[in-house]
Order: sequence, then C-alpha cells, then structure tokens
Amino acid sequence: MKLLRYGKPGKERPGLLDADGKIRDLSEHVADIGGAAISPASLKKLAKIDPSSLPLAKGKPRLGPCVTGTGKFICIGLNYADHAAESGMAVPSEPVIFMKATSSIVGPDDDVLIPRGSKKTDWEVELGIVIGKTAKYVTEADALNYVAGYCVINDVSEREFQAERQGQWTKGKSCDTFGPTGPWLVTKDEVKDPQNLKMWLTVNGKKRQNGSTNTMVYGAAYLVSYLSQFMSLLPGDIISTGTPPGVGLGMKPPKFLKNGDVVELGIEGLGTQKQTFVQDK
Amino acid sequence: MKLLRYGKPGKERPGLLDADGKIRDLSEHVADIGGAAISPASLKKLAKIDPSSLPLAKGKPRLGPCVTGTGKFICIGLNYADHAAESGMAVPSEPVIFMKATSSIVGPDDDVLIPRGSKKTDWEVELGIVIGKTAKYVTEADALNYVAGYCVINDVSEREFQAERQGQWTKGKSCDTFGPTGPWLVTKDEVKDPQNLKMWLTVNGKKRQNGSTNTMVYGAAYLVSYLSQFMSLLPGDIISTGTPPGVGLGMKPPKFLKNGDVVELGIEGLGTQKQTFVQDK
Repeated sequence: MKLLRYGKPGKERPGLLDADGKIRDLSEHVADIGGAAISPASLKKLAKIDPSSLPLAKGKPRLGPCVTGTGKFICIGLNYADHAAESGMAVPSEPVIFMKATSSIVGPDDDVLIPRGSKKTDWEVELGIVIGKTAKYVTEADALNYVAGYCVINDVSEREFQAERQGQWTKGKSCDTFGPTGPWLVTKDEVKDPQNLKMWLTVNGKKRQNGSTNTMVYGAAYLVSYLSQFMSLLPGDIISTGTPPGVGLGMKPPKFLKNGDVVELGIEGLGTQKQTFVQDK
Repeated sequence: MKLLRYGKPGKERPGLLDADGKIRDLSEHVADIGGAAISPASLKKLAKIDPSSLPLAKGKPRLGPCVTGTGKFICIGLNYADHAAESGMAVPSEPVIFMKATSSIVGPDDDVLIPRGSKKTDWEVELGIVIGKTAKYVTEADALNYVAGYCVINDVSEREFQAERQGQWTKGKSCDTFGPTGPWLVTKDEVKDPQNLKMWLTVNGKKRQNGSTNTMVYGAAYLVSYLSQFMSLLPGDIISTGTPPGVGLGMKPPKFLKNGDVVELGIEGLGTQKQTFVQDK
C-alpha cells in the first residue's frame, strides 16, 4: 500500500493511493497514519480493504508528511562512501547518528524556508525507514519485522549551521521545514529490496544527485538493529539513512540554494517530491 | 505553582503540589500537563485555583515526568566553564546543541537502565527549561516570555557511546530512561533568578556535583533566543542547559555507574530526584 496524509497542514486526513494514482480516504478505518495505524496488525487489516470501496478525495489536495506522531527523526551521517568522500570525511567504522527536530517535518511539496542568516542551505535525497513496531535490542535478521515501510526524505541541511557554528550537526538539520517527508509511506511488502532503489535529485531541472541505495554503507536492516541497541525505536519513528553524492557542499565550487530555487527528488517506487525554497523573513 | 504528573507510567494524572507538600489532583481542570496546559493563558487560569479545593492524591504515588508531549529534548553541551575543563574541551564560542531522544524521558525517581554493553554510564544534574509558547526568532530580552517554567533533569550519558563510537553525542544521550525529568515543573513566577540556583548530585550518598547555575556560560534567556534562531521551540519542548563540574568522566581516574548505584540530585527550589541504576538485561 501507499499510505498518505492529505489536506491542510495540521488538518490532514488519512488516505491511500489506489492503482490509478487516485487518493482514497481512509478516515472510516483509521484516525490518522500514525504509530497505531501502521502496526503490523493494523496494516494487515488495511491491506484487506478494496480501495475502490473508499471515497475519492476531492480535487488535488496538498499532501502532508506521510506519517504523523513521529517521536524521533533519526539520521545516519556519511552512509554512502562517495558522499563521505565529497564531504572530505572518512567512511565511519560504525553508523554516525544524529537527530533532526521533529518540528522540521513537512509535506513532500511544501515550501522549504531558507532560515534567516543562512548562506549554505543544501539538499540531500534520502531513503526513510518508518518504524511500525517497538524495536529494542533486535538482531539484523529480525530487524525488518519492525519496519512498516519506506518513504522519500529530503534531509535539508544548512552547512554553516551544521559544521561551522560550534558543532553537533543537529543545529544545521533541524530548521523548520527542513524535513519534507513523503509523498507516501510505501509498505514494505511493495519494496522488494530496499538496498536496490534508484534515487535522484534535481535543482531547477539540473540533475544533482543520481544514485542508488545499493551503495549505502550500512543497510536498512543493519541500521534498525544497530539503533535499537542504543534506544527503543517506536512506531512512527523515522530513520533517514543518508544521502548519495551530489550535494551542493560537494560541488566545486560549492553551490547552495537561494530564494525561488525548485528542488525535485525521488526514489524508485516511493514517489517524488517538489519544493520551492523561500527565504524566511 | 509546582505542576506534576503522578500515577503509573503512561497513565499519569495531572497534579500540583500544595503548600504542605501534598499532591492535589488537577484532572478536573486540565487533561494532562502538556503543551496546552502550560500555555500562558492556561497557567493564569490554573494559578487562580485554590489548591485546597482540589482532591488529594491517595497514598504515595509514583511521579512521572513533569511534562508530557515533549517534541524536542534539546541539550546544551559544555555550558559550564569548569565542566568543559574537566572534559578536556574548550568553552564553545556559541552554544553547542544536541538532542536527547524523547523516548529517554522518565519520572524523577524511576530506575535508570544501564544499557547492554555499557561501561561508562555517567550522571549530569541540569536545569531544564520548559517552553510554554511557540518561540521563533525571539530576542534575548523577550525570551523568558516563552518559558513556562523550570525543572530538574539528570542528563544521563554513556561516555563511550557518546564519544568513542563514531560521533554525534546523541548516541550516548538517548538510551531508554536516560532522561529523568521532574519532580515538578516549577512555573517561572516562583523562580526569581534562574541564573542563581544551587545544584548538587550525590552517588551512593557521596557528593559528586556541587554547583550553581550562576556559572553557566550561556543563560536561560540567551539559550531560548539562540535556539529559536534555528528552529521553532514548541510548547512542551525541554531545553537541558548543561551540567556543572563533577561528572564521573572528569574524576581521576574516571568513575562510572554500576548496577545498584543510587543517584540523588536536586536544584534549589525545583525539588530532588533519586534513581537506582539497574543493568539492562
């Protein structure tokens, strides 16, 4: 299934995308696409619904973030060898983890605000893992049993805030609107191999990132298991798994986003995002 | 007011501490002590209630974390000059910020789990700031208007996870139960000067930390303003403002917590915490 949330910010309704690409309303079945709705038991129930029996959404509604109630938005740093190289960093001997503020989460096509004082706002297409069941001390072999599905994330990053303003990357990762998430939470049964998905990103129509999850250093199952050794992963938590090469910081000379720039990105089978970057006043 | 939450984990009821140190139930007035209940308007209403008109809680209930619905648990690193020195780090030229997972939050006297594989679980008494009103791009002069109150936090830290396991401190700060919070959210009208509060911590009765918020490098108002330049602070968000000297990592030789150790800590006017550290199995 391709689960989604549609409607005005803060007023989203739960829905799913049918085989014709139309939005069907799920309000009769779940309150929202959050932790409770994406448990293994709930997903099983939802999968039995005939989409054609669900009401069609009217018009062309805005899409919200594809999951709500996210308690942790965990990111993996330098998880593609080529991206580590372009950042001038070594591939880490175990996953680097940091947090993005959950208040940064927005819909896939919402405007992204360039924060006041920002000179180095950058893009990062990433595969997001959405947790469906509480995971603690789980093995790699068992890890995907705790995953509800996958989504596209733009891990928007302010490089000066991240690295030149007295450390800990969260500072450059957590700005409002820096976490476009969606369009859909694609349940894992539809994602045959999360480690073999093409991914891409363009800025004003020019291809900037063009990779595949097959070059990830630490894969989805490993990451879920690894993180669960440090903390419980809860339903609705999101893990953003790192970005392939092609970010603005890695260009020669570096190139960053400015007011009016349009970023489009996508991952094979998980849909696309399109954001206009707008200078925050 | 001293607002609190009491009852079994996940089933806490809202309450307040009366002048005799007794817990009074607030369920008739607010659903819980979360973002909505600690808005300026709500706090004004709650302040008008005569505590003696509220039902007394029965027995000696467990205290939960003093605020619920925390979306961000933001910490400030190296914010006491002496603690930076004992950690072998320089005082930063602007605040170092990192996140603790919100899933680490527990009550003030709950057991703290020493994670599997941990050898360096450590303590940090800290002043917590609880946000009562959405703050974005606020000035230092205006910042405290967005604060609901203050609380005690033990920013429990696993030093090997934090610093020796491929970076970004969140890894050693986010383990389950690593964020005892409370006993009370003390509203700011009762805290004349947040920059002049004595604070202390003992391990098995031995004094380990003995400081005052008057040696903080960046004070509460500055931190709220500073953080709000990077991200919106939302009602219920917590800022843990750093720890004075005396952590286990700074002892010669370093000393860490083991199964059965008892940690007690407190801040002047904000109450005390007492945790037993228990090896997670």
